[in-house]
Amino acid sequence: MKKLISDKVINRLTLYHSILTDYIEKDIEYISSPQIAELLHIDNTQVRKDIALLNYKGKCKVGYKAVELKKFIEKTLKFKNVKTAYIVGAGNLGMALAKYDNFEAYGFNISALFDNSYLKIGTMINGKKVYDIDKLAEMAEKQNVKIVILTVPRQYAQEVTDFIVKAGIMYIWNFTPCVLNVPDKVQVWNENLIGNFLQFTVNHNINN
Amino acid sequence: MKKLISDKVINRLTLYHSILTDYIEKDIEYISSPQIAELLHIDNTQVRKDIALLNYKGKCKVGYKAVELKKFIEKTLKFKNVKTAYIVGAGNLGMALAKYDNFEAYGFNISALFDNSYLKIGTMINGKKVYDIDKLAEMAEKQNVKIVILTVPRQYAQEVTDFIVKAGIMYIWNFTPCVLNVPDKVQVWNENLIGNFLQFTVNHNINN
Repeated sequence: MKKLISDKVINRLTLYHSILTDYIEKDIEYISSPQIAELLHIDNTQVRKDIALLNYKGKCKVGYKAVELKKFIEKTLKFKNVKTAYIVGAGNLGMALAKYDNFEAYGFNISALFDNSYLKIGTMINGKKVYDIDKLAEMAEKQNVKIVILTVPRQYAQEVTDFIVKAGIMYIWNFTPCVLNVPDKVQVWNENLIGNFLQFTVNHNINN
Repeated sequence: MKKLISDKVINRLTLYHSILTDYIEKDIEYISSPQIAELLHIDNTQVRKDIALLNYKGKCKVGYKAVELKKFIEKTLKFKNVKTAYIVGAGNLGMALAKYDNFEAYGFNISALFDNSYLKIGTMINGKKVYDIDKLAEMAEKQNVKIVILTVPRQYAQEVTDFIVKAGIMYIWNFTPCVLNVPDKVQVWNENLIGNFLQFTVNHNINN
């Protein structure tokens, strides 16, 4: 698949977005590319190249208008296309993600959680209800939800995956440390936390 | 900084490692590169290229010996260099990471959590104690800990960062949705969950 925007650019754009949110909260009107570059310890040329991708022409002597640059990033990353998802697994990680208030700002709406524990079913987490996993197929069809964030324990990951794929889920954001076996039509995005951290430790030769 | 191994390769190697763990648990002795490729929906050439980086010559007609290939990945990704870290912020995300049992298999040892809430200080999470954040500097010095996993709420992220940097922390794995302002000597690894997900949604044009 040809990527519209490279992963690294998307990653940086969301970090710029976070910086802009911070500037706007502090009532700072303008931001320059060297200011962004310095905060992220990256090269200014890189920042300017990324911003050029946005087709934003508003640069002036004092820099970019924070509010406008933010809007251009949001347009490029399609924050207005609201994507609805379910969390499957209402443990600590599922709860943490349900409480991650920043998702909504990015057009990402978590509408419900699912679990099989009677201690959790019926409880509310950050305004979102935990439902019996057996209700998922019916609800996903009615609400046209195709995305699941998977946060179940490792040993149930494949079994639950088979179940949600049968229920019509097409996209799985996988937070379990397992490689899931899915049909070709289903897309899995492996969060792979340990892989992310090893990218850091291996290349910095951290050893303490 | 010149990277020893590219981020994408590290990411794939940890996924291969996860597949191998699964095979070994199921008592399957051999694995072939097409089997790995199929599970990850990637190209077999890619898998063979990655494995070639490991300097593992054990391939035979039926494939690689799972146990051996796993060891070579562990050597390349330096799992034996045990890295000790603190979690700062004992909320849901901090607790989820403290319970993420797979970290230890990857040479990553979380020895303690820190928080400022008296409801949390003194409690145990997965055998790890939650300490008063005020004790961090003293403990980090005594135990020579230089890595922190930051999971505090957004609004305290910078303040806590300033505090832990003063305490001698050199590496921050940042799970907050904030860009942290740190001195040059300190390295931040932004987990940037939303950026990871947008990499997925933007390029797959997900819109439900």
